[in-house]
This record gives sequence, structure tokens and C-alpha cells, in this order.
Amino acid sequence: MFEVAEQKHSLNKEAYREAVETLRFDLLSRQLELAEKRDFSVIVVVSGVDGAGKGEAIHSLFEWMDPKHMKAHAFGEPTEEQRMHPRMWRYWHAVPPKGEIAVVFGSWYFDPMRARVLGERDAASFDRELGAINRFEAMLASEGVLILKLWFHLSLEQQKKRLAAIARKPSPGLHVLAEWSGVANHAAVNETSETVIRRTNAAHAPWIVVPSADGHYRDVMLGRTIADAIGERMAGKEPARPEAVSMTAPSIDGRTILDSLDLGKSLDKSSYERQLARYQHRLFKLAEKGAFDGRAVVTVFEGWDAAGKGGAIRRIVRALDPRMVRMFPISAPSEEELAHPYLWRFWRRLPRHGQLSVFDRSWYGRVLVERVEGFCDEADWQRAYTEINDFETQLADDNYLVLKFWLHISKDEQLKRFKAREQTPFKQYKITDDDWRNRRQWDAYAVAANDMIERTSTRAAPWTLIEAEDKRHARVKVLKTLCKRLESVL
Amino acid sequence: MFEVAEQKHSLNKEAYREAVETLRFDLLSRQLELAEKRDFSVIVVVSGVDGAGKGEAIHSLFEWMDPKHMKAHAFGEPTEEQRMHPRMWRYWHAVPPKGEIAVVFGSWYFDPMRARVLGERDAASFDRELGAINRFEAMLASEGVLILKLWFHLSLEQQKKRLAAIARKPSPGLHVLAEWSGVANHAAVNETSETVIRRTNAAHAPWIVVPSADGHYRDVMLGRTIADAIGERMAGKEPARPEAVSMTAPSIDGRTILDSLDLGKSLDKSSYERQLARYQHRLFKLAEKGAFDGRAVVTVFEGWDAAGKGGAIRRIVRALDPRMVRMFPISAPSEEELAHPYLWRFWRRLPRHGQLSVFDRSWYGRVLVERVEGFCDEADWQRAYTEINDFETQLADDNYLVLKFWLHISKDEQLKRFKAREQTPFKQYKITDDDWRNRRQWDAYAVAANDMIERTSTRAAPWTLIEAEDKRHARVKVLKTLCKRLESVL
Repeated sequence: MFEVAEQKHSLNKEAYREAVETLRFDLLSRQLELAEKRDFSVIVVVSGVDGAGKGEAIHSLFEWMDPKHMKAHAFGEPTEEQRMHPRMWRYWHAVPPKGEIAVVFGSWYFDPMRARVLGERDAASFDRELGAINRFEAMLASEGVLILKLWFHLSLEQQKKRLAAIARKPSPGLHVLAEWSGVANHAAVNETSETVIRRTNAAHAPWIVVPSADGHYRDVMLGRTIADAIGERMAGKEPARPEAVSMTAPSIDGRTILDSLDLGKSLDKSSYERQLARYQHRLFKLAEKGAFDGRAVVTVFEGWDAAGKGGAIRRIVRALDPRMVRMFPISAPSEEELAHPYLWRFWRRLPRHGQLSVFDRSWYGRVLVERVEGFCDEADWQRAYTEINDFETQLADDNYLVLKFWLHISKDEQLKRFKAREQTPFKQYKITDDDWRNRRQWDAYAVAANDMIERTSTRAAPWTLIEAEDKRHARVKVLKTLCKRLESVL
Repeated sequence: MFEVAEQKHSLNKEAYREAVETLRFDLLSRQLELAEKRDFSVIVVVSGVDGAGKGEAIHSLFEWMDPKHMKAHAFGEPTEEQRMHPRMWRYWHAVPPKGEIAVVFGSWYFDPMRARVLGERDAASFDRELGAINRFEAMLASEGVLILKLWFHLSLEQQKKRLAAIARKPSPGLHVLAEWSGVANHAAVNETSETVIRRTNAAHAPWIVVPSADGHYRDVMLGRTIADAIGERMAGKEPARPEAVSMTAPSIDGRTILDSLDLGKSLDKSSYERQLARYQHRLFKLAEKGAFDGRAVVTVFEGWDAAGKGGAIRRIVRALDPRMVRMFPISAPSEEELAHPYLWRFWRRLPRHGQLSVFDRSWYGRVLVERVEGFCDEADWQRAYTEINDFETQLADDNYLVLKFWLHISKDEQLKRFKAREQTPFKQYKITDDDWRNRRQWDAYAVAANDMIERTSTRAAPWTLIEAEDKRHARVKVLKTLCKRLESVL
């Protein structure tokens, strides 16, 4: 695979000077147009053998371009904060907003590759990790991110020569970041990177091998690759998109899983108070006993407007030490959030181990309100089921308990509650035109909820359907479900 | 001080119901108006004795208000990430944008108070910490933040009774967060909180003592305090402002400190290359030898347009492992940043220990461009000198090395560089109308720079003036200064 890259490629001083002059102009003008139009963002992944000059190449890039609209991210050993979050968490911080460019050094490829090179990862689990990376990049690409992945290559002989030259004479900006322990692992690095490139090369996230024996050639190739890719996309070339899959089939009789719920379930006041106190106390004790040690909990609340999400949430929050709870009422995304892939704002809100996050509405907005109201294309919400399952699987793999509640009420009950809200001065703010509009779309939402539950209730992150016609029953069932789940892992 | 609060205050069920009905309406309508108008933000600090029901009171507040526009922040033991940053870093994350309300539990008061209660802090250093808190709150208030600080009080007898009642019968949401080890430290907590309240009570950041023996009375008083304070400010009541001090005196002969620089300093090409390589190598080695262990470095670059800041910065960055460097080109603040106190965006960009941040322009914009262009009031930039000195002192106290460079060139040299930029295709983007406009304000900027250097060159964070007429000399001097500073602390 690397034979071509090992050919003698080079640019003499004059050719380099000329190439750079055009290149700088192209890079800059396209970068500034990108920053102006904000149609998409760019991620440049930089990897390669030790001594290939990845650092130097990035420095050239930053010298040629406007550092205002680009950012270099270099990841090393994870910090404690990063280790307390899912593996991909820190990389999500590098995902740029539309209009900007991120250059990522020590990317999501590094940890698995290094483990593989050092023989700490068997082929099967390595393959599984590459699969997850493929899905991650496909998601980014579907969200419009332009992804370029560069592998800086040196033959063994070239590598030896360069490392020796650097060791001999310290010169400005020349030092080796020994990610792979230098030449020692040359063969293993080669083999692993071949596998990686084969398995993760996609039209929407291509690998480009950069011959790095000659610094001039290397830097110009890096810059040229970026300038051309941005230029093509900007010129209207249809971006490569991961294959689209339709995940839902229309229901024939209009019946949904929600119809099977028994909305007659209820609790009288005294049983309610007894049970509420019992489960709140149990939850508090579970936390005391360390149920959150080395683990985080993510709770998601979805359901009809006025189904009682807020009340159920407060009953959980009230039972816990406020220092371990983080509440996120989710409404329309901010401008900054809109400029990122839709899962970005949720990744930023994930609890660290030891904490519980409550999402009052969530990433499921993608397959509920965005689907029903047409805020995104059908292809977008269709792929969201898989993306969300991937997301939640990543959480589960990193010791996150994901609990999802759908609070269900009847259409009549909703009407009653809407009217009551309109008549209570301090509740009027809770009822808006949106609520009435959503209500008119009841059937469409029921189908969307049905599809969502069918497609995303997984072993790792099951949905719990809550009969919420009676608020007391709903609150106790939510608390009880949470307690039982925590007990099951203790 | 607490005698009044120990009186028997209470609300019976009926009075409570009535009070809450009006209160909820007031709280909500004012909160929603605040969220709509975004004129200011609100910080509510919640402290008090164990068992006073701070948690319960906050829960009531969240039940009464719209959780969409408010956030509870509860701080416990600092995480590793927090310990790797200055003490106040985590609290800056709780500073809300205009239009929103933050309720802070376990605030900046907690650590010093607890240390004092446990006898780990002597009176003098405790006093020093309270002084720093006063300056922090004065800064927030000057930036328009409405600050309310509530102390939840119980007499010893009341506290004993409540703790016993809670221990006897688990009831919904009732549990004690033993911040002060319960009754054991009652006297010490009382004494310390008296000192705190006396020392940090200010019209712009008042303490309100909340009698907490009766839960109804307590919760209504909390809500009422907030509703009234927001209402008054919204009704146009002039907010209390910390005393303003003028820090600068006009120069009589127009001469500035910049005039004393010898712009003739230069380096020939070969000395430059030799010295550049030497200092870059030295910097790299310093990092290898652990110069950044347990310490962070903040470098600030200010100076005339086209003075060569970017080039000098790249020479530093190039010498270091990219994983330890973070670069921040600072331009006009985003909408989100504008909604916060001006130092907020810089606090968020502070390096953690082990890292170096480069600020290409910085918080000094406040006393340079904002002063000269009139983007803020004179009172605002006048107080900024003290605020910035406080900020940098906090950094220095937490093992941050702060290096500030002013790159100086002559007016003629600037003109030459502007023209050269206009003639190089890939440099044209660097020269804008702004640059020409700034140039016409040369004298005003010179005075502003002079005042800035005079007022903010401190032992903890000195300015280094760089003669930048010759780029080579400038780059080497910057690198050399950084190396020497690091060597001085090794």
C-alpha cells in the first residue's frame, strides 16, 4: 500500500516557493470564503509514523492560513476528567462549527492503533473499534462535515535517516514526538496502518497517504489536499454521503405501541406519599452506598406536552445530593449548537462518572419534533435511529446507565391539563401556541413515538413506558424504575 | 447578628398557600421578562448551617420558576480538572449570561469558610481571601450582575430539633448535606459566618439572613427576596455600583514609555538562525525537564497591527509539543461572550497545569481598543486595571506564569508593512479597513498602551516591551524572555 509513497518525491527550493505562493492564495481565499458562508466545517485528521514531520507540516499550515478560523487539537494521555467520560467525549470537543477547520493530531485513531501496535488489542476487538469509528465518521459526514485523513509515511530507511538527522543537530522546530517509539515498531505500525486505512477509507472520509521524506513535498501536499477538497465542495460538488437506510415501515392499522398502555393505573394519596418517600429514600441510600461510583446515569424524559415530565424529574432530583445532579431542559438549539452536528450539544452535557444527568427532552427531538415538523430531511431522521443507538451504546460501554422514559397520557387528559394551565396565573407560561399546534399533530407524534420506541429500545438503553394519566402513579414508577436499575448493577 | 433570625417566624398552611400564589406569579413573570429583555443576569448564592433546608428551598424555587432560564450549580470537592486550574475557575463556569439566573450552592465562600471553621486558616489569610471575594463580586456587580447572597440560619436548639426530626423519619426530599458536620461546629460556624457577612456585605452584593426554622417561611422568604430584587432592577432602580476609581492621569508632554525603546536593535540572518535554534531547543528541553509540571504558562501578545505578533507566536509554538500548547487568536467577542462579564471568555481559555496558552490579543482589549474606540464607558476601562491585576494575581497565586509582550514598531515601519501586505496576494486578508482606522488613532493607542503598561506591569505579571522594528530581534527576545522566566522557577 505504501510503495507509491516511498517513491522519491521532492520539491526543490524554487519549485517549492512557486507552489507555496499559489497554495497560500488558494488556501486563504477558500478558508475565508468558508468562514464567510459557513456552509460546512472541516476536520483534518493527522497521523503517521514518528519523525515524518506531522508537527512541522501543521505549523506550515498555520503559517499559510488564517489562524482565526482554524484550531489545532492535539490529544495525549487522557486527563482524569476525560477518563471520567466516554472515550469519544474529548474528541467531540474538537468538532468545529460550520465555517471552521479543526486539525486533529492524536485523533480517535491513536489509542486503538497504539494498543494494536503494542499487541494489547486482538484483531477482533480492534476491528470492532474501527467499526465504531466508521459509524462516527459516517455520522459526521452525513451532518455535512468535510473529513480528510492524512497518513504521513516514511519507509524504514527514510525514517532512520530522518531520526538520525534530527538527533544530530537541533534546529528550529524540529523534534520528534515519539508516538510509536520510533523505528522500533516500524513494521507493526505499517501493518496496523494498512489495516486501518483499508477498513476506514470511505468516499466521505478518505485517507490520503502523504510521502514525507521531503519536507517541502509533504507540506505542499497537505496544503494542496485541503485547499482542493474545500474548493471542490464550495464549487458545489455533491459531497460523498454514507449510504442511507430507511429504518421505519408505515403502520397499516394506525395502531401504536402506546395504545397498549393501561392508563387506568393510579395511586391514592396516602399510598403515593408512602411510596414516594420510600423510593426517594432508597435512591438517596443507593447513592450513599456508592451506586454512582465509577459509573454515570443518564435519564431521558420524553412524552406528550403536559404529561408531567417536570414533576417526575423534580421527585428524582429532590432525592439526591445536588452536587451530583445536572438538569438540562432541552429546547430549540442555539446558533452555536445549530452550527454543529446535532448530537454535539448532548455530548457536552454528559455527566462525569459519579453524576446523574436529567434530560428534559433530548436527542430524540431528532426523530420526534424534527421529523414531524419537517425541521430535517427524512434521510436525516431515518439515519438518526442508528446514530442514536451508536451513541447510547458508547455510553453503555463506558459504564453509563441510560434510562429513557416516555410519559404517556390520553388526548382528553392533555386537553384537561392545558385548560387548567390556562386558568392558573403562574402556569400560563407553560402553555403556548406550540403546545396547541403539537396537539393538532397528535397522530403524527404517536407514529413517531412508536417508531422511536421500536427502533431505539435496546438492551443497553431500554425505553420505559410510563402510564401518566395519574401523576402519582407516574412519579412513583419512574423512581422505582431508576432504583431497580441501580440495584441491578450494584 | 442572628438574634433577629432566631425569632419565631412561621407561616401557617393557609398563609403559605396564599403567599406562594402571588409569589409564583411574581417570580415567573419577572423571570420571563428578564429572559426576554436580557438586561442583566442574576447570581443567587445559597449558604447556611447544616439542616437549614437549603436543598429543599432550592427545590421549591425550581418548582415555582421556569427551569429553562435558570441553573443550579452545586460544588463539592474539586475534581482533578478543577485542581489543575485556578481556584476561581470552576465558579466562573457558573456565571450566567444576561437574562438567566444561577443558583450557586457551595459557592466561593465555602472552601475558605470551612477551612476557617475547622481551624485550618488563620484570621489574616482568611481576611485576605474575603478581600479577594469582595473584589470578585464588585467586578461582577460592575458588569451588571445582580448578586444576592442568602445565609440560612438556625439557632443551636432549632438545628438540633431539625436534625433529629430528619433522622427519625425519612420523608420525601429531606436529607442533610453535612457541610459543617452538623451541630458539632455550630458555634464556630456562627462566628465565621458573622465575620463573613460583616466583611462581604455590600450594597451591590448584599447578604440576607433567612430564618429557617419554619420551612414555609424560609422558602417564601427566599423566593420573595429574588422576585423583589429582580423586580426593582427591572423597574429601573439604579443598581448599587462599587465605588469607581480613576486610575490614569493625563500625560502633559505626550511622551509615553514606548518612546524610550531603542528601535534600532536588530539581528543579522545567521545570528538570528543560530539564536532561534538555540532558544527553541532550550524551550523544548525545559518542557522535557518538567518546567511545566504543576504549573501553567499564560503568554499575552499585544502591540501595533503588523508588529509581528503572529510570527513571534509561531516561533514559540513550533518549539513545543503541540499537546501542551493552546492558541487563542482573540477577536470581537461572540454574542454569548458579550452576554457575560468581559473576563469570562478568558477564564474559559486558561490552560490547565502542564500547558501553555498563547493569547494573540487578550483581556487588555478592554483598556486598548475598547477604551480608544469608546466601546465601553470610561468607568469601565478605568476599573479594568484593578480587575486585570486581580485576575493575574489569582493566576500567579495558583502557579501560573504570566508573560505579557508588547511588540513595538514605529509608525513608518507600520506603513511599510501595511503596503507590503497589500501587495502580496496571500497577505491581503491581513490588512483591513480596521487597520487603517486604528493607524489614524496611533497617538490615542500610544497613550492607552502607556497607561496599560504603567498600571498593569506587576511583579506577578510584568510586561516585556519588545523592540519589533526588526522581526528577528523581536522573535529571539520573546523566546529568550520565556526561557529565562521558566528557568527562574525551575
